[in-house]
Amino acid sequence: MKIYETRIAPNPRRVRIFLAEKGLEIPFEEIDIMKLDCKTEEFTAKNPMQRVPVLELDDGTTISESVAVCRYFEETNPEPPLFGTNPVERAQVEMWNRRSDFNLLFPIASAFRHTHPAMAELEVPQVAEWGEANQSKIDAALALYDDELKSREFIAGDCYSIADITAICAIDFMRVLGRKLEDQTNLIRWREAMKARPSYTA
Amino acid sequence: MKIYETRIAPNPRRVRIFLAEKGLEIPFEEIDIMKLDCKTEEFTAKNPMQRVPVLELDDGTTISESVAVCRYFEETNPEPPLFGTNPVERAQVEMWNRRSDFNLLFPIASAFRHTHPAMAELEVPQVAEWGEANQSKIDAALALYDDELKSREFIAGDCYSIADITAICAIDFMRVLGRKLEDQTNLIRWREAMKARPSYTA
Repeated sequence: MKIYETRIAPNPRRVRIFLAEKGLEIPFEEIDIMKLDCKTEEFTAKNPMQRVPVLELDDGTTISESVAVCRYFEETNPEPPLFGTNPVERAQVEMWNRRSDFNLLFPIASAFRHTHPAMAELEVPQVAEWGEANQSKIDAALALYDDELKSREFIAGDCYSIADITAICAIDFMRVLGRKLEDQTNLIRWREAMKARPSYTA
Repeated sequence: MKIYETRIAPNPRRVRIFLAEKGLEIPFEEIDIMKLDCKTEEFTAKNPMQRVPVLELDDGTTISESVAVCRYFEETNPEPPLFGTNPVERAQVEMWNRRSDFNLLFPIASAFRHTHPAMAELEVPQVAEWGEANQSKIDAALALYDDELKSREFIAGDCYSIADITAICAIDFMRVLGRKLEDQTNLIRWREAMKARPSYTA
């Protein structure tokens, strides 16, 4: 079993943090997406979407999409649970993880991919106006998350979950936009708690 | 328990088909998103993202995001399983459901929301160039799905799953773009199989 990843990218980091929280060590193989290594015929056979991370099982089965890779490890190594423990919790973790994906990580990645010259070969066509339009979507998501964290410790409720992992990877990735948390005091408190976990540097 | 939805929108349809496959009947309440009913204070308290569908439980707990609503019903009513039945299947269903979301439904919805005059109040700002750029992403996804369905019956493998539901809702929603399947023979075969299921008209 091994995982193809790109160390600097936000999605593979989600899987590394997830594995660290589970106490699992899986070998990684680096794919240089800036050298378009994800667009080779060999890699495309592993993931037709040409994205990292990709989990390759010993029988050759490949699983891509960060959350799907995490789901595999949740199913095979249930402790500690990172997707919730009862129907309502599992639905709430799913809800907040998808919000973290669609309303936080996606706008941040879109703002970067559509405006940064280094991404011109990976994001075709770049639409600068769309990249810029995502800045206000990021503002709105940060305001919502800050407000939600007034009354609870973690993104999806009282327990640490994959929704925290997606959110911290998204928020840390704002560095590529030259953005950081400023007056979102609840989010800043939460981020410090994330940084204090050993998984943070995975 | 009830579900707030908008009958014509693709995401609530995912939940209706899912419930029909489970044999469950839950009361629905119509929200007119074109009249901005999703932006009222009352509805925003149920879902700060101001989107449908929203599941409201008897204790007032609200769950939004279509897949999270489906997850709740999968957990409370496991038969028939629609998220896979073992770790590899569950990961593959997750992977294909996310691809159907990110690579099919999202580009189709983006092309619509960013170019159609009727969506000007819901999608702010509309970026026409981004809407147009999604047409080639739709082409690429349809070609990939058609190729994948050469060798299997359903989107995520040998069993019908939520990934089929997301994909059929996305592909049928292409009608708002004036697009339909044309030379994707495997996808057309699969779509006929979807149409033959009683859940199709849910």
